[in-house]
Amino acid sequence: MRPIRVMVWGENRHEQVEPSVAKIYPDGMHNAIRRGIEHWLGEKAVVTTATLDDPEHGLTEEVLAGTDVLTWWGHTAHGEVSDEVVERVHRHVLSGMGLVVLHSGHWSKIFTKLMGTTCTLRWRSANDRELVWTVDPTHPIARGIPHPIEIPAQEMYGEQFDIPTPDELIFISSFTGGEVFRSGCTFRRGNGKIFYFSPGDQDYPVYHHPDVLHVIANGVEWAVSDRPEREVPILLRYDMGDFFNGHGYRGAMHNKESGEESAE
Amino acid sequence: MRPIRVMVWGENRHEQVEPSVAKIYPDGMHNAIRRGIEHWLGEKAVVTTATLDDPEHGLTEEVLAGTDVLTWWGHTAHGEVSDEVVERVHRHVLSGMGLVVLHSGHWSKIFTKLMGTTCTLRWRSANDRELVWTVDPTHPIARGIPHPIEIPAQEMYGEQFDIPTPDELIFISSFTGGEVFRSGCTFRRGNGKIFYFSPGDQDYPVYHHPDVLHVIANGVEWAVSDRPEREVPILLRYDMGDFFNGHGYRGAMHNKESGEESAE
Amino acid sequence: MRPIRVMVWGENRHEQVEPSVAKIYPDGMHNAIRRGIEHWLGEKAVVTTATLDDPEHGLTEEVLAGTDVLTWWGHTAHGEVSDEVVERVHRHVLSGMGLVVLHSGHWSKIFTKLMGTTCTLRWRSANDRELVWTVDPTHPIARGIPHPIEIPAQEMYGEQFDIPTPDELIFISSFTGGEVFRSGCTFRRGNGKIFYFSPGDQDYPVYHHPDVLHVIANGVEWAVSDRPEREVPILLRYDMGDFFNGHGYRGAMHNKESGEESAE
Amino acid sequence: MRPIRVMVWGENRHEQVEPSVAKIYPDGMHNAIRRGIEHWLGEKAVVTTATLDDPEHGLTEEVLAGTDVLTWWGHTAHGEVSDEVVERVHRHVLSGMGLVVLHSGHWSKIFTKLMGTTCTLRWRSANDRELVWTVDPTHPIARGIPHPIEIPAQEMYGEQFDIPTPDELIFISSFTGGEVFRSGCTFRRGNGKIFYFSPGDQDYPVYHHPDVLHVIANGVEWAVSDRPEREVPILLRYDMGDFFNGHGYRGAMHNKESGEESAE
Repeated sequence: MRPIRVMVWGENRHEQVEPSVAKIYPDGMHNAIRRGIEHWLGEKAVVTTATLDDPEHGLTEEVLAGTDVLTWWGHTAHGEVSDEVVERVHRHVLSGMGLVVLHSGHWSKIFTKLMGTTCTLRWRSANDRELVWTVDPTHPIARGIPHPIEIPAQEMYGEQFDIPTPDELIFISSFTGGEVFRSGCTFRRGNGKIFYFSPGDQDYPVYHHPDVLHVIANGVEWAVSDRPEREVPILLRYDMGDFFNGHGYRGAMHNKESGEESAE
Repeated sequence: MRPIRVMVWGENRHEQVEPSVAKIYPDGMHNAIRRGIEHWLGEKAVVTTATLDDPEHGLTEEVLAGTDVLTWWGHTAHGEVSDEVVERVHRHVLSGMGLVVLHSGHWSKIFTKLMGTTCTLRWRSANDRELVWTVDPTHPIARGIPHPIEIPAQEMYGEQFDIPTPDELIFISSFTGGEVFRSGCTFRRGNGKIFYFSPGDQDYPVYHHPDVLHVIANGVEWAVSDRPEREVPILLRYDMGDFFNGHGYRGAMHNKESGEESAE
Repeated sequence: MRPIRVMVWGENRHEQVEPSVAKIYPDGMHNAIRRGIEHWLGEKAVVTTATLDDPEHGLTEEVLAGTDVLTWWGHTAHGEVSDEVVERVHRHVLSGMGLVVLHSGHWSKIFTKLMGTTCTLRWRSANDRELVWTVDPTHPIARGIPHPIEIPAQEMYGEQFDIPTPDELIFISSFTGGEVFRSGCTFRRGNGKIFYFSPGDQDYPVYHHPDVLHVIANGVEWAVSDRPEREVPILLRYDMGDFFNGHGYRGAMHNKESGEESAE
Repeated sequence: MRPIRVMVWGENRHEQVEPSVAKIYPDGMHNAIRRGIEHWLGEKAVVTTATLDDPEHGLTEEVLAGTDVLTWWGHTAHGEVSDEVVERVHRHVLSGMGLVVLHSGHWSKIFTKLMGTTCTLRWRSANDRELVWTVDPTHPIARGIPHPIEIPAQEMYGEQFDIPTPDELIFISSFTGGEVFRSGCTFRRGNGKIFYFSPGDQDYPVYHHPDVLHVIANGVEWAVSDRPEREVPILLRYDMGDFFNGHGYRGAMHNKESGEESAE
């Protein structure tokens, strides 16, 4: 079985400009996450990284076509991700590329586009302890995960989290202040699978926490598509009695739906 | 109890240019739908209409602020709906305005934006008989609806319908050719409720069918928000121990989430 | 519109034998709950009560046939509820009677029968503060409910709560110790609607808390069936092309499904 | 990786008494299903069979403890399955044993117990053609399955299918007569995973259909638990601040929940 090709995408801005963050993550959050996935998946995965300031943010058509699962962490520069790259990533997710969105990535262009909502929440950065509880013990992403995960210091995220109802709710977190949050959720979009996992923040060493990295690795493994080819859903006409030969159309007059073929 | 303020939006293009459509719907599909809602809801609703060619498509800020539920039918001119109006409608739905999307509206800008997927499907216009079966008999939208609804001639819509998993699946349709379709689905987005119902096409008199109009009326009634005010979810910071006083912030450096207040 | 006929069922054992409980609930938890529903629903409801020690636990065929929504609180004597009465209540719920299950009712015969799981959880009675957070703001049961509800002293219930995935998750609670719990859930079973709400315990004055009673009242209102008659789903044979005349059968040999008609 | 240990359970009554059935399935439906799973899973599975008339229906404690996934087909003799064996199977499913329920198994004691509903439906045995359509293309059970599966002759099953809302809806079927049915559904119960798949009937050679057998094999593979040990959820008390040491209790008076430990 071919290894999972994972791309860990990180904004890599805080690490450049905030000494406190650079101290926790000397080579960037993205490399801490990469090492975590490599640790837990071993030979099952091949992991690369890219950052915001790479050309095309490191997410060219060629790169995405060769990526099974993309992980995303962004925070202060969501607006700097080019719309063209967001469209490209969106198309690949709908075509079957897995996506794991982390923490403040809830407000990324790609996640809000896939969700259709504001994806807002309530927050506080005041050293809350976070406890991550498993509510779906049968889920592969929960395999081997302690109940609960104890994270001594974290940024609080609290409900209401303005997302569509998750397809699957795997984890719920609590914080010292008493807030709760649906911290581990899955969504299907087109032919792609998406996992959102909230623990993690540039001001805390959460991406060195073995259980957090274990969940991310499980999520990467889960998000791989088992379809042989990448294809985005398209609109096709089918004659009566013919289930397997679809016809594309353009124009909606004369009783025909406008048909647009999606370029891959 | 104040009547539900309903706005029936119709593209109103086919009716202008195709005599066969004008024959079925002399004053437009939107007026047929309006009469259906008025028939089934009576004094419980006040219904107005607007079309694509009205200024701002008839969907000004003032109109939307005074609309409890918007119904949407479009087909050949989805691309002509201005992005600015789509943003406005999107914001109102997330704030609590109900939305009922009909038939080819599956491919409207507003529906695809709320779903995050392509919303494509398979289709055929060849006089299939459609049977609409109820799979959730407890749902208010299914109240008083025959099991099944028989629609003698209809455009076929078939799976796969590229939508997110519906929050609730109320109706499933079959067609003469054997195709099936999740024809009645609900979605929550932000503080708003959305009902998608597929039967209906400009080439068939489906919007004169009493059971179809009954479902649409039930859907309108269901989609009304029971929150007293329209408000879009926003991102706020909360101090430890204070659950009711949120603070907005700008800028994500110095350990703070960028806080944007949404203008209503 | 006819008032909702509500039956509040209480075990009424703790109140008899534990002075500390009798002090908090001098005329029983069931009467506190009854008064709460009457307060919030006013003329919209007519509320009666029954207890374990009534003949047939107060749940005769006649009583159930005249009950729109049954609320259930039990704890120490689940095993004393007769199987015959449980069967009767089960049949009525599947036929359309609403059911609101409260707190330790999670382990009642009727709830475990409807769920098919153990319905176990983790717990502690040590004066935790409970915060009840709303995660589905569009839900009618959440109407008018503070975010969060603050309950100063409560018994802790924590995940994993061994229930099927709720149809709708409305509330999530946190406790002083850091545990979380899916505290407000809905389930559809047959033609009936079920709402489970966890806050409440014989050792704490939770059933005097206005917000808790408000949720229970909202839940009662939501659980009412809008079907005109009570009928349990049954298995019927339908000839090709006939959608409306089902035939009952007995015996599964000779290509026929065994058909059992359910007596109402 | 250790092979999946599959037990294919068949009622094996029709095959004994109806020559038409014996002709289609000379060594029983259970062996046709077994061969199908062996074909599609190869070395990944070790498959055995058992029937109703075996001692304890072939489902002793020892057998179940050594079974990863149980498949179930029954029809005319659901009532002859002993309650004691049903309890045992139920406990194992809640503990992590996978369950695949086939066709008329919808009315088995074990399935109705896990669902909590009547599990009734509408039916007809008149050589309908069945088309099985995929509605969740990302699901592992849908891997490699044609869209649609064409089954030339089948017993019709139609909505309303009185089950709880499935956790996941994978397949929807249509029939010549126009009926629809949610033919492929998953449910989680406790630590176990359940897949219900409707195509198949003793009067039709459906269990020789390669696509049907492929789905069953995919379902078996999906239903395997990835937890290392079989354990049924139990109710435990946890002290404040201690998340990992639960205490069992008996008796609900004096502020303690009655704690029952489930024997495995």
